[in-house]
Amino acid sequence: MTITSLPNGSITSPRGFRAGSVIANIKYRDRLDLTLLVSDTDCATAGVFTRSQVVAAPVIVSRETLQANAAAIRAVVANAGNANACTGEPGLVAARAMQQAVGDALGFSAECTLVLSTGVIGLPMPVDKLRAGIDAAAKLLNADGGQLASQAIMTTDTHPKSVAVQVALSGGAITIGGMAKGSGMIHPDMATMLGVITTDAAIDPSTLHSYLRRAVAVSFNRISVDGDTSTNDTVLLLANGVSGIEFDSAEDDAAFLAGLTSVCQQLAHMIVRDGEGATKFVEITVNGTSSDTTAHAIANTIATSPLVKTAFAGSDPNWGRILAAAGRAGVSFDQTACDLWIGNDGLTWLQLLASGTPTDYAEDGAAMIFAASDIVVRLSVGCGDGTATVWTCDLSHDYVTINADYRT
Amino acid sequence: MTITSLPNGSITSPRGFRAGSVIANIKYRDRLDLTLLVSDTDCATAGVFTRSQVVAAPVIVSRETLQANAAAIRAVVANAGNANACTGEPGLVAARAMQQAVGDALGFSAECTLVLSTGVIGLPMPVDKLRAGIDAAAKLLNADGGQLASQAIMTTDTHPKSVAVQVALSGGAITIGGMAKGSGMIHPDMATMLGVITTDAAIDPSTLHSYLRRAVAVSFNRISVDGDTSTNDTVLLLANGVSGIEFDSAEDDAAFLAGLTSVCQQLAHMIVRDGEGATKFVEITVNGTSSDTTAHAIANTIATSPLVKTAFAGSDPNWGRILAAAGRAGVSFDQTACDLWIGNDGLTWLQLLASGTPTDYAEDGAAMIFAASDIVVRLSVGCGDGTATVWTCDLSHDYVTINADYRT
Repeated sequence: MTITSLPNGSITSPRGFRAGSVIANIKYRDRLDLTLLVSDTDCATAGVFTRSQVVAAPVIVSRETLQANAAAIRAVVANAGNANACTGEPGLVAARAMQQAVGDALGFSAECTLVLSTGVIGLPMPVDKLRAGIDAAAKLLNADGGQLASQAIMTTDTHPKSVAVQVALSGGAITIGGMAKGSGMIHPDMATMLGVITTDAAIDPSTLHSYLRRAVAVSFNRISVDGDTSTNDTVLLLANGVSGIEFDSAEDDAAFLAGLTSVCQQLAHMIVRDGEGATKFVEITVNGTSSDTTAHAIANTIATSPLVKTAFAGSDPNWGRILAAAGRAGVSFDQTACDLWIGNDGLTWLQLLASGTPTDYAEDGAAMIFAASDIVVRLSVGCGDGTATVWTCDLSHDYVTINADYRT
Repeated sequence: MTITSLPNGSITSPRGFRAGSVIANIKYRDRLDLTLLVSDTDCATAGVFTRSQVVAAPVIVSRETLQANAAAIRAVVANAGNANACTGEPGLVAARAMQQAVGDALGFSAECTLVLSTGVIGLPMPVDKLRAGIDAAAKLLNADGGQLASQAIMTTDTHPKSVAVQVALSGGAITIGGMAKGSGMIHPDMATMLGVITTDAAIDPSTLHSYLRRAVAVSFNRISVDGDTSTNDTVLLLANGVSGIEFDSAEDDAAFLAGLTSVCQQLAHMIVRDGEGATKFVEITVNGTSSDTTAHAIANTIATSPLVKTAFAGSDPNWGRILAAAGRAGVSFDQTACDLWIGNDGLTWLQLLASGTPTDYAEDGAAMIFAASDIVVRLSVGCGDGTATVWTCDLSHDYVTINADYRT
């Protein structure tokens, strides 16, 4: 199985996709805030969406559109600055107006377009600005537009997030590209804030959906910045088949899934590294539980604990907080069977706790590991074969600064 | 029903209780860090403890002691600076040594003493310092010692937390006093970090336990500072019967429960107001759910959302985050039925959302309410009669400062 990363890869790396991005002045001034992605041909499309009870208008509209037309999607329009969430009926009207505007500009029907929005919740959508932006973006569509597209969906992100891989199948190479935006309100419960993945492989919608769910489960659904699931979480996967390459074997299927998972994990890790105020990237693995699900519950509770995350921020190896968080995860285990290791590159490991009792470790060694920008934590609770890994960041002063005054 | 607050009330306000506090140099220098509370006679005693899977040695030992001897407790010893959690077998030995030291100093058996510890997790207990401290404290026991006792259990608390009320029963007045410590790792799941309540009423242990559970359910179990349940959460209630006053009627029972609830709520509110880095006190009421339990789940998710809490810190009325948090609470509701109000003194109310659509409210009015130090939030989801109120604080820079480097 050969998966190759493409330099400067993006959603327009796969053949047959073009993007155009503009400054639509939705909230920000002088920066890209609207992008339009278009496929030359109909795309089989899959989507995973937030499981929140409070869902944004673009989620409602895109979900409906996908149910009706998953075999023939042509475009995705995305804006930053306004989430179109908690906006009532006028919000639904605005999301549909965005679909219609894309159709009008490009000459296909409204239900060929999916809509993504991200930004402040509860503000009315400036529909006229969006329409003008869509018209302008439609004139800028080009096959090198993927990098700018990933800039146009940023909110408090400090870096755009784009990636592409080439996957060698038995009949030739296909390409998978992706972009995402993250930063805050990141604790996906199906998908991250916004993610769009494209491929020139030919796959039917239901197979595509199964691949997407499996890739998301071990990537976007395993990260947390602040534990806040968003109203707008969406990941879309569009396959336009332009490569003309068919899947010939179970090996091809596995290679595609591996390539897709790689794209999703790379984007998910980029989101964590660019988490609001993040100064550290932390991988947390829990094993020894009765199931993977309970391991995930413990890992997740550690990853979202403010006390654990502030200890990471302060480079303070206050590991008792890791155990305390594990203890409140709602999963039964025996504290006298717990082992805890920390490391910073997979090579240097330090055991802090053995069978529930602190080891005679050197405080300096623990402090050195916690001072690194990449930290690995491994907790074994010794009652089974379950395991799970999640990725998170620290909780720093900058997180508070960014979020205490986000709207001004 | 007459419940009167006592000025400078404390755990030694009820008759027959004495306390002594000393500097034992457990972790801090030059401040009280060990206290001993003693009753002149045997106490019926009830306790509620953390439901974490990782429980501190003093919790294990006190729970065992209460099971064996709830009708004849004489003393509580508490230390700050070391939580005696994740300390393995040596930790259990240390907790039992503390019981033994109290018994030796005062001439009763070890199982007459309950043990409380709070502070850093994972460090060995300095047993010799504790023994010396207990001997010294036993010589300082006095009926005015309650205020100092509440100072001796502080960690990052900035104020001691003491209260007492007098409750008029048909046969005369009884007194209930209490102290607590809180600050961080506050999201009690049975009790707060540490709380000790005393009364001179005469009540049997099982009735006492039922009263304590009911009072804790609407006080300590309804607050959150950072969502982190502690390994050491404990609330104890000791009744020594020294008042000689019997409960004669259902009215007396109700009056006692009301007095006890008042003590618990006052202490719980003090803990939130003194939460690590707290600059705001926020009351969140959710109603219109199918049950009180589901209302509590939604209120709790709002109260622990980092995005909601940083918005409070920044006085930013970014109410969309409140709805987004509610949506991920795991409770079904119809977002088009949601109404949201904010207020700052129970008199000024501003409705922000009506039937899921933003109202035409004045941004200045919302900003003024969020600028206050006490904020009230009321969310109705319109599908039933369930209701719950929780209390929380904001997430400020100081929370990060305090916790990024707690151990140094």
